[in-house]
Amino acid sequence: MTGKIRIGIVGYGNLGRGAEQALSLCNDMTLSAIFTRRDPTRITPLNPDTSVISQHNIHDYQDKIDVLLLCGGSKDDLPRQTPELARFFNTVDSFDTHANIPDYFAQVDQVAQQGGKVALISIGWDPGLFSLNRLLGEAILPDGDTYTFWGKGLSQGHSDAIRRVPGVKAGVQYTVPSDEGMQRVRKGERPVLSTREKHTRECYVVLEEGADANEVERTIVSMPNYFIDYDTYVHFISQEELDTNHSAMPHGGFVIRSGVSASGSKLNMEFSLTLDSNPEYTASVLVAYARATHRLSQQGRKGALTLLDVPPALISPKPPMQLYKELL
Amino acid sequence: MTGKIRIGIVGYGNLGRGAEQALSLCNDMTLSAIFTRRDPTRITPLNPDTSVISQHNIHDYQDKIDVLLLCGGSKDDLPRQTPELARFFNTVDSFDTHANIPDYFAQVDQVAQQGGKVALISIGWDPGLFSLNRLLGEAILPDGDTYTFWGKGLSQGHSDAIRRVPGVKAGVQYTVPSDEGMQRVRKGERPVLSTREKHTRECYVVLEEGADANEVERTIVSMPNYFIDYDTYVHFISQEELDTNHSAMPHGGFVIRSGVSASGSKLNMEFSLTLDSNPEYTASVLVAYARATHRLSQQGRKGALTLLDVPPALISPKPPMQLYKELL
Repeated sequence: MTGKIRIGIVGYGNLGRGAEQALSLCNDMTLSAIFTRRDPTRITPLNPDTSVISQHNIHDYQDKIDVLLLCGGSKDDLPRQTPELARFFNTVDSFDTHANIPDYFAQVDQVAQQGGKVALISIGWDPGLFSLNRLLGEAILPDGDTYTFWGKGLSQGHSDAIRRVPGVKAGVQYTVPSDEGMQRVRKGERPVLSTREKHTRECYVVLEEGADANEVERTIVSMPNYFIDYDTYVHFISQEELDTNHSAMPHGGFVIRSGVSASGSKLNMEFSLTLDSNPEYTASVLVAYARATHRLSQQGRKGALTLLDVPPALISPKPPMQLYKELL
Repeated sequence: MTGKIRIGIVGYGNLGRGAEQALSLCNDMTLSAIFTRRDPTRITPLNPDTSVISQHNIHDYQDKIDVLLLCGGSKDDLPRQTPELARFFNTVDSFDTHANIPDYFAQVDQVAQQGGKVALISIGWDPGLFSLNRLLGEAILPDGDTYTFWGKGLSQGHSDAIRRVPGVKAGVQYTVPSDEGMQRVRKGERPVLSTREKHTRECYVVLEEGADANEVERTIVSMPNYFIDYDTYVHFISQEELDTNHSAMPHGGFVIRSGVSASGSKLNMEFSLTLDSNPEYTASVLVAYARATHRLSQQGRKGALTLLDVPPALISPKPPMQLYKELL
């Protein structure tokens, strides 16, 4: 043990705050600083003793930080930040634009290799732990089908889409997995499920004064890409009700592998998450994998890696022999 | 790609047969031979073209086999076989005597190190995938409790115990997880559950002619270690019914991590298996991890390892970039 692992948080939104919380539960790590593009004096960390530093000065911290948690968004922040920072710091990020992951990996890998650093990309639950379970499922049961159901959970993208509808003052959207679809999968039917058969969408909407509820509902349920392919339910509520009952960010979901052995035995694997707070859980995964990032770097590894490349024992504070004794 | 991975199976009971089946679903591996302590002419493999070889001659196959799957039992076979064979072959075994795993690891590690081979020990689902999920749970959610429920599944040890009771001609025992206990855990109550609150035991018993059913039932339900601490239900059935409805080997179970974030959000992780055939599934896990064993050996690794030490990507036939693209 050569002291605690020194962590930096880059970006202090929901995910960054979750990371600060998650670090407070880990005795073997310490939060060295939060870096922000905003005015540092306007950031109030949960722990008032935590240093908040302007991101312009992050390079002064190269020798004071073992791993940076990049807590920005996948759309605008990470594609720019990670290639900048992965040359100088070991990094962990939650890049989740699925289609762009191979390009992002290649770009970050090149920079991290050059800098001799480890960059763990796309950490969290999907991509992340759900990817791991999709991998376990198809590798262990080659004759099978993998199903991912999301929810019940708040979808940021769909909530934004609702809020752009004329006449909508505020609103949130929950993705709800289909019980019937999941039951068919669990029975081993290996059904081909349409988009509509996998999830429904529940919208809670506050109208602008004088807006036409029927017109708003029609616009939402017929919106291409977002809603038209789903059974969508629109509930009109007051601003008070929205604030009271719909300000949390729950999420979760299920990865199910429905397989058969060569002689036809049904073999079912299932992984699921039920999360009161999506960002707090994602941050907890980032923090555990920061531990692995530090150890991989100390082993001399460099370049980009994903959760699928990390020996699971490296995310635990316990030494391997203790894990074998307690968990095997 | 340097040709298929050449696999040998040692021991041809339920697990060995399951391994032969599982290999038939993997295009990148080939079954080179089954090794048996019995007379090879009395073994009928599922594929009649498979070589069946006396275990005495296994050393003639050192250059013809990349990984041996050790499919013997944990009580008598593996503690003797693995230390013998791990010096000369890469091995994968399913050693599952939990309390003895640290000693077994140390013993096998020494031999495998000396021989420059990789020995993957305690592969399967418990120990194995359940251990992995216990590790993920406690590393990601340090403030939490881990619960393992087994079943519904046939317990070999408890079935044997029933069959030793005077007056019992035949019988099987199923371990059944408590729905109520699981619901309490999923709600985030983090209950302390007694043995009785976690599982019940269902026994299906065929009586010897003239045996006293009440006496048999009393003996079973009051049996120390096996039944007295559980709610045990004894059903008397005919030999025909036993043969028809109770000859399969189903099993499964649940690993649940019930955690909270530092600000009190409930965060629940759950992994579960529902298996029509316990040995066929366990064998499928062994076969997937044989792929990883071969690759680790090719990377120059040596010594004993567990499932917790293996980068998950190594168990897939797909190259990493394809995994990132398809599964992340």
